Amino acid sequence: MLLMSFPSIAQQALWGGPNIVSPEINKDHTVTFRIQAPDAKDVKISGDWMPRQGWIPGSADMTKDTAGIWTYTTDVLSPELYSYNIIIDGVKTTDPNNVYLIRDVASVFNIFLIDGGQADLYKINDVPHGTVARRWYNSPGNNTTRRMTIYTPPGYENSKEKFPVLYLLHGMGGDEEAWIALGRTAQIMDNLIAQGKAKPMIVVMPNGNVAQQAAPGESPKGFYKPTMQLPHTMDGQYEATFKDIINFVEKNYRVKADKAGRAIAGLSMGGFHSLHISRYYPNTFDYVGLFSPAIMPDPKVKSEVYDNFDATLKKQMENGYKLYWIGIGKEDFLYKYVKEYREKLDAMGMPYVYRESDGGHIWKNWRIYLSEFTPKLFN
Amino acid sequence: MLLMSFPSIAQQALWGGPNIVSPEINKDHTVTFRIQAPDAKDVKISGDWMPRQGWIPGSADMTKDTAGIWTYTTDVLSPELYSYNIIIDGVKTTDPNNVYLIRDVASVFNIFLIDGGQADLYKINDVPHGTVARRWYNSPGNNTTRRMTIYTPPGYENSKEKFPVLYLLHGMGGDEEAWIALGRTAQIMDNLIAQGKAKPMIVVMPNGNVAQQAAPGESPKGFYKPTMQLPHTMDGQYEATFKDIINFVEKNYRVKADKAGRAIAGLSMGGFHSLHISRYYPNTFDYVGLFSPAIMPDPKVKSEVYDNFDATLKKQMENGYKLYWIGIGKEDFLYKYVKEYREKLDAMGMPYVYRESDGGHIWKNWRIYLSEFTPKLFN
Repeated sequence: MLLMSFPSIAQQALWGGPNIVSPEINKDHTVTFRIQAPDAKDVKISGDWMPRQGWIPGSADMTKDTAGIWTYTTDVLSPELYSYNIIIDGVKTTDPNNVYLIRDVASVFNIFLIDGGQADLYKINDVPHGTVARRWYNSPGNNTTRRMTIYTPPGYENSKEKFPVLYLLHGMGGDEEAWIALGRTAQIMDNLIAQGKAKPMIVVMPNGNVAQQAAPGESPKGFYKPTMQLPHTMDGQYEATFKDIINFVEKNYRVKADKAGRAIAGLSMGGFHSLHISRYYPNTFDYVGLFSPAIMPDPKVKSEVYDNFDATLKKQMENGYKLYWIGIGKEDFLYKYVKEYREKLDAMGMPYVYRESDGGHIWKNWRIYLSEFTPKLFN
Repeated sequence: MLLMSFPSIAQQALWGGPNIVSPEINKDHTVTFRIQAPDAKDVKISGDWMPRQGWIPGSADMTKDTAGIWTYTTDVLSPELYSYNIIIDGVKTTDPNNVYLIRDVASVFNIFLIDGGQADLYKINDVPHGTVARRWYNSPGNNTTRRMTIYTPPGYENSKEKFPVLYLLHGMGGDEEAWIALGRTAQIMDNLIAQGKAKPMIVVMPNGNVAQQAAPGESPKGFYKPTMQLPHTMDGQYEATFKDIINFVEKNYRVKADKAGRAIAGLSMGGFHSLHISRYYPNTFDYVGLFSPAIMPDPKVKSEVYDNFDATLKKQMENGYKLYWIGIGKEDFLYKYVKEYREKLDAMGMPYVYRESDGGHIWKNWRIYLSEFTPKLFN
């Protein structure tokens, strides 16, 4: 065939270097990384399976062979979606042989997956797949259009049925790409639905930063370096205008537009948002999930959203709900604030389900929490 | 606020290094790149605006300052979407300060955009935006489910109107992510529609490799190193089963399901596919676009799809169509085959529009061709 005549030098130049495989998942679930760098003095790998020193990620030296290829093999790794970077002579960058990348705020990591156990929920299995759309909606409360990611379950398009909706909120520095990429939401939902463990549901992943129309690179602001903190993320504006999102979804999708058909959950800042949105609209959600929530017991920011906290929380309790779920890792830096919040709920007699996991403020936990929370919805 | 208490070391460790901006688009449309690499001996940049030596990409040395930051500033660049890599001590990798990345087969590039002129079509402007969905469909002809990317124009969901459809096919090594990422299809369509230059239309971007269910990383095959060549890409199977895609789209979307409402176009291998699909289904498409098509005048592969080439092409001509559009760059390695094909069309009296551009077999040209082709459709 004609395209066979592409010279091999062209293929090498255009579509990657020599045929180095990295990472290679070995049969025993160790993982070998390789990088060709004959002129580098020092090559390290930094992976999220390595012990951290406080906030500093762990790293390990790679070893150079006579051909200039550096390698590193891990110990046996448990099933999980892992991320890593390569550090070439002090520069933390990506593995040129691994095209699978995820951005988290302003950092880009390579990823790989060790299958088995919980991690099989993160794989694309041979099951029916939902549709994932990026869609713009009008937000009159913010006087602009904004972008969301929306998962509709397998069969949605060919059904006349009405589906329940989970609103799933990201953390600080995240956006409408966070849950679908880092959270593996589409894979988790496809798999749980196929296994009969979760009801078919729509999952709406909005952008929780009202200062943004869309994720970095996806709005008229163009390409810029993302930052962790943006104005108006935790000042009540998002919560107060959340009805724009609910209205859009309920007008544009075949949904169960009642309390029994609505759930809201979020991680970190999104847990804070979920707490306040479910309280501010106190008879709207039958299911609330706070994943490592960034509880703010004494906000400096004044907003009518945060006024009458205790009274509206009590109102939410009195109105009734089916599930108020709180999950946090034992090592999370927010642990003590969540503990205080639980004491407050205990004191007022507000029922909740509490899940304490290992680990800290990390996506590994949020994927687990999503996998455990969604089977409890809409039953 | 609580999350303000994230120590700055944590932010630096978790979400990127010191605040280096790279690339910086200067006011005069030169571009400055920066990378902190005090321990590197040699840092280069390789960008697609640099002259190539044959297939070998150009590169230039970056210069180190006393703080260990390497910089490089380009000459004035014309408006365009550009791609580049950083080469650290001989290792071609990505710029750690630029989170905007695109994969092309097995390579990952950083991107940036110089606005103005044609490139303004590639920007996300403040115009109504269509919806981009990744959706799975059943392909009985391939006995499997497969993934496609589908663009529905602004207003599609809130209309009762039927829309015409452009089937837009990728090249060898590409997949259903190629046109939407490298081709900026959603941006081009949003902008042309907003300017009244293109009719609102649905754009279907299927996966043209029947050996794949979906793009690398998006199928049960998991994460693996993508390759340029796959079995069954140019052996007739895709063309013969293309009706599965048309059937799916016409059953599941509000479309004009007639010849006047169908266009097909593709680049390189996708141009080859478009040529053969439009001929094999000779009364199906009123609009055909061959972008740098990989014409295969004497296929070694035997398939009933390629039988009776001349007779079915003549049949297509006799059935009539509104546009048969061929575009190619003067430096394209396929130029001579396209010239031969045009001579064949001339000899048989088959009308076509011919567009010859500068440059070679590159995405810059395919974005231009898409921008010029779509305004000619469905008028």
